[in-house]
Amino acid sequence: MRLLIIGGSDAGISAGLRARELDPTADVTLLVADTYPNFSICGIPYHVSGEIRDWRNLAHRTTADLEAAGLQLRLGHRATAIDPDAHTVTATTPDGASVALGYDRLIIGTGAVPVRPPIDGLDELGPADGVHVLHTMADTFALQQSIDDRRASTAVIVGAGYIGLEMAEALTTRGLHVTIVEQLDQVMPTIDPQLAAPLAEHLREHGVTVQHGTKVEAISRDGARLRVDTSDRAHHGDIVLVVTGVRPDVELAAAAGAALGVRGAIQVDRQMRTNLPDVYAAGDCVHTYHRLLDQHVYLPLGSTAHKQGRVAGANAVGGSTVFAGSLGTQAVKVFDLVVAGTGLRDQAARDAGYAPITVASIADDHKAYYPGATPIRVRVTGDRSTGRLLGAQLLGRHGAEIAKRIDVYATAITYGAMVTDVADLDLSYTPPLGSPWDAVQMAAMAWQRQVSSDR
Amino acid sequence: MRLLIIGGSDAGISAGLRARELDPTADVTLLVADTYPNFSICGIPYHVSGEIRDWRNLAHRTTADLEAAGLQLRLGHRATAIDPDAHTVTATTPDGASVALGYDRLIIGTGAVPVRPPIDGLDELGPADGVHVLHTMADTFALQQSIDDRRASTAVIVGAGYIGLEMAEALTTRGLHVTIVEQLDQVMPTIDPQLAAPLAEHLREHGVTVQHGTKVEAISRDGARLRVDTSDRAHHGDIVLVVTGVRPDVELAAAAGAALGVRGAIQVDRQMRTNLPDVYAAGDCVHTYHRLLDQHVYLPLGSTAHKQGRVAGANAVGGSTVFAGSLGTQAVKVFDLVVAGTGLRDQAARDAGYAPITVASIADDHKAYYPGATPIRVRVTGDRSTGRLLGAQLLGRHGAEIAKRIDVYATAITYGAMVTDVADLDLSYTPPLGSPWDAVQMAAMAWQRQVSSDR
Repeated sequence: MRLLIIGGSDAGISAGLRARELDPTADVTLLVADTYPNFSICGIPYHVSGEIRDWRNLAHRTTADLEAAGLQLRLGHRATAIDPDAHTVTATTPDGASVALGYDRLIIGTGAVPVRPPIDGLDELGPADGVHVLHTMADTFALQQSIDDRRASTAVIVGAGYIGLEMAEALTTRGLHVTIVEQLDQVMPTIDPQLAAPLAEHLREHGVTVQHGTKVEAISRDGARLRVDTSDRAHHGDIVLVVTGVRPDVELAAAAGAALGVRGAIQVDRQMRTNLPDVYAAGDCVHTYHRLLDQHVYLPLGSTAHKQGRVAGANAVGGSTVFAGSLGTQAVKVFDLVVAGTGLRDQAARDAGYAPITVASIADDHKAYYPGATPIRVRVTGDRSTGRLLGAQLLGRHGAEIAKRIDVYATAITYGAMVTDVADLDLSYTPPLGSPWDAVQMAAMAWQRQVSSDR
Repeated sequence: MRLLIIGGSDAGISAGLRARELDPTADVTLLVADTYPNFSICGIPYHVSGEIRDWRNLAHRTTADLEAAGLQLRLGHRATAIDPDAHTVTATTPDGASVALGYDRLIIGTGAVPVRPPIDGLDELGPADGVHVLHTMADTFALQQSIDDRRASTAVIVGAGYIGLEMAEALTTRGLHVTIVEQLDQVMPTIDPQLAAPLAEHLREHGVTVQHGTKVEAISRDGARLRVDTSDRAHHGDIVLVVTGVRPDVELAAAAGAALGVRGAIQVDRQMRTNLPDVYAAGDCVHTYHRLLDQHVYLPLGSTAHKQGRVAGANAVGGSTVFAGSLGTQAVKVFDLVVAGTGLRDQAARDAGYAPITVASIADDHKAYYPGATPIRVRVTGDRSTGRLLGAQLLGRHGAEIAKRIDVYATAITYGAMVTDVADLDLSYTPPLGSPWDAVQMAAMAWQRQVSSDR
């Protein structure tokens, strides 16, 4: 069994490791376009900030670890064509030669590439000008170089999604003054504005200039600096970071005849099979099955890539595993706050045919009498007709166990819980860490009270 | 509707508040034996330690709050008899008079009383001698008085359950040298010895003398100090704290003809009804329905008392709510560690007819490359034949989101999850707070690997 994997990031590595775990005789080869296999791109902000001094620590596993697990890594090998009939992949080697590799099974894990939004001047500017995207280790090195070379003291970040916010913190921590500009009416557009507003305020308290509801119209050089023109004012920065999302990297797969699904991502079934014989795909290049919607969406997240890769790897060596699906669960730390969400928000739930109502509440992370209690803002979304729990969002202090509280909701949603079931859960209680009714339960009771009083 | 409630602690207050919420016209009267309604006995260690300066802050709600919610509090009223035929309760008032109160519905929330183990000399010693139990505010004041009066610098704690451990921390924080003696072979007998051992080591690192596997045989006065004789040595202390568990306080209910269940607790159904007409009971005085065992056990915990009280209160005013059940979920902070558990451990699962296997693993609380990562020890118990998740135990640093991680397991167990389902959960991931596979998922995968390799 020759298993070939294109891609050495989360999905590809997970697939390879799982395949070798289930079939230690499998010949597993990975084509890795750069020389940084198994690097955590989610960790990049913490290297830029200076919190992780050595970039090598960003690797989930070292090359030696991966080789010890039986993975054959072809570093610096960029796949250029897949021939599904011949079961071969052509790749360019580090010295520019072309090589063809045969496979019995192929897994495509090409990931995503940064979106370049339609901004005047952006296409003419790049790292040499101090204008950056941030998705690979090469991007990271280029950004670090720019900051050093330009002795940057100011930065403009275009895009206030989670990477934009993490980078706002990272660059601030590193001593730069940061301006962050977002086209939509709020930072962190994946959460409700009622939580985004205090999050934006927190960024401002840490010295970040936050401007949302403003489109960036042009980026240009202005002497040694860069000028970012928005619809109502201009910002200047020594560097500009464009982090406005990603799109699936599907060129290779599409050229080989792979059918594309949602948002142009590679179409796969829940066994991670593409329409091409013996070809699987996983990670940010594919669409993702959503457990609550019972349909595929585009939801590129590292945690999902690991899970999909594991399924693809198992099935490629003869398994019959099914990807359980995503709920879009996410947590982000921004300075001293953590924001998290899972499941559907009001509008998405409505679009999916539910009758949602979202109820806000505030509860302490632990008993107020014990030192250090802090309030958690909770928004619970449930179906008014059936009472089913559809989603939840949390905002609270770092240290207030926000990430694992969202996981409690995610687990409950997975099993089709009613909102009221959450209040019945036997959750842990000790005064330094919780309350007899945990914040997640207080919020569920608040939801029920609201729904009852509406009747 | 005249609802009478005996008891002003977690169960009684929850019952009263829920009854008033559902029926704002209900006449709700509580007989509170002391003058501290709605006090958090779980918070007592943190007042003794000095972390909560004012004991009044231990109240979940003030008397004014409770009265504003429509509860009529009769403080200092000790119920002495229930006449279920006449639907009356007789109580002694603060001035020693006797009063009879009629009811349409009665809720008994008399709680628990400390067990006094068979130790020579114990019956002759009390707070005046520096020998204490710790279950009420009166006990708390007496202990504080003893520490002050005796200028106590050393303490011996008998019993290393969670209250014993919390008090070991509290008294150490207050500057006392603490010796803790436990009859069983480990501290914290509700967790596996593999986690209890590092917990004991942690206590020792904080200066606590820990002796387990040793029975206390006698307590006696030895000059101004107290002498605690165990089977193999004697300990001396200025004060002695006996915290060896509680038993349900059922004297009043039993005298009225209430049937008793497990461990002598009041027998109730899942609607919290006793066998007496119109009489409900909740909290530490009743037995508790266990979700996994599908039978009643004695599991006195504050979180459970709140839930049972809420059910009793709803049903007393005409509802038909069912207590969902407990899993014995618990978390305890001991100095810088947190230990937590839910569901069944190996032996309990075996006794219940399962074919359990418990698998240990260790995983970081968040990505190792981000500063401050700490290892979490996890023990997952599952059924070898069906794959069903039966229980989990965690030990890790305070701040490592141990309490909410046990809640993820508790939620999964509630819904009958397989161990492998845990790995499929869409949990949150961000490097400062987790990993692409959370520690709870790594542990589930380790369990599955072990079971597969055994085959």
